[in-house]
Amino acid sequence: MKKAVVLLSGGLDSAVTCFIAKREYECHALVFDYGQKAKREIESAKNLAEEARVFFQIIKLPLSWRGNALTDDTIEIPDGDASADGKIPVTYVPARNIVFLSFGVSFAEAIGAEAVFIGAHQMDFSNYPDCRSSFFESFEEAVRCGTKSGTRGGGIKIMTPIINMTKKEIVEEGIRLGVPFQYTWSCYRDGGIPCGSCESCLLRAKGFVEAGGEDPLIAKNRNEE
Amino acid sequence: MKKAVVLLSGGLDSAVTCFIAKREYECHALVFDYGQKAKREIESAKNLAEEARVFFQIIKLPLSWRGNALTDDTIEIPDGDASADGKIPVTYVPARNIVFLSFGVSFAEAIGAEAVFIGAHQMDFSNYPDCRSSFFESFEEAVRCGTKSGTRGGGIKIMTPIINMTKKEIVEEGIRLGVPFQYTWSCYRDGGIPCGSCESCLLRAKGFVEAGGEDPLIAKNRNEE
Repeated sequence: MKKAVVLLSGGLDSAVTCFIAKREYECHALVFDYGQKAKREIESAKNLAEEARVFFQIIKLPLSWRGNALTDDTIEIPDGDASADGKIPVTYVPARNIVFLSFGVSFAEAIGAEAVFIGAHQMDFSNYPDCRSSFFESFEEAVRCGTKSGTRGGGIKIMTPIINMTKKEIVEEGIRLGVPFQYTWSCYRDGGIPCGSCESCLLRAKGFVEAGGEDPLIAKNRNEE
Repeated sequence: MKKAVVLLSGGLDSAVTCFIAKREYECHALVFDYGQKAKREIESAKNLAEEARVFFQIIKLPLSWRGNALTDDTIEIPDGDASADGKIPVTYVPARNIVFLSFGVSFAEAIGAEAVFIGAHQMDFSNYPDCRSSFFESFEEAVRCGTKSGTRGGGIKIMTPIINMTKKEIVEEGIRLGVPFQYTWSCYRDGGIPCGSCESCLLRAKGFVEAGGEDPLIAKNRNEE
């Protein structure tokens, strides 16, 4: 079976992406512990990888720069629609996907994988520049030029299977594929239950409402109360 | 003064690049501890940064994949011209410069730097695909598409000032700029003195011979004996 690296964040999008990837590839999930406040993501990613029965490893990357709300303790995570009017919100971590993908590509080349999957999408998203098709296309070209496998033809593909799906469609696809959403964590904040008010929680809720289903994570938390 | 990030490996090429960069920029050097056998590189980079009076930090990256001679203990570093006939040698670490540059770009964006300097060159080199102009150009384009600063115009430049210099020219430029070559370390192997037989040592020796000077590191070692 062909091999692929899957960047697993613990969130809903990368979970669906992983379940898409594993239909065709032997998947090796990488989870980044990069200094994010939401440590719960890492635990969620581990549980998801176990449920999906894919290889899994945690990579520690010192990306905890000041100046963004996800890694800087002095900046609060904003509530609500932080990316209104096309703004790039304070939750943008500089070049985060460039670093994650680079690492994924290096690992892919080392293990002989031919693709790196990432769960980015540019429909219901936060205007992060590193979540747009134009970025992934140009990055794939850089990888083709800058790797041994790329210069020999073929090379490593950057796979973004949900890039043009809405949150509703991502949830629907996840339901179809049996993604255990109760193990995913989308909230930018850490804690026992999602805050429900950060942009990531709002986008997730929108997805479930529009797909006409209840979020299994919310249902699970209610049942445990 | 404008800010730049400089990727400092401890070797001769990045040292010259750092001294070129600091004529125009406030430099922030990043040194990667990525699992390389030649730990001496890291100490050399630290000494160089001190001599150059630039900011400096060591970044630990877990890139120690199997399958290449620089990080895999089961693979010996070859002697001699390992890249003869256009071959990519076993010292190629998968996508290493992609990972290093990505990290540099993330840090650059976090501190408001407008350039990342890297001491790659494609003249007397080891056929590493991630040392060629075509790679750096396409990577810069990916960075333009995938960063906040890039989408707002300007963005972060990838600077390769020695890309088309021969080793001879790099040595000459270093001498002109007062680079303390005795603090640099090019050998792929670790130890007290350079092995003198790996490809990196051979390329360095060629540079000094053609430039008509003695390598200050060799002279220093002789005097200390």
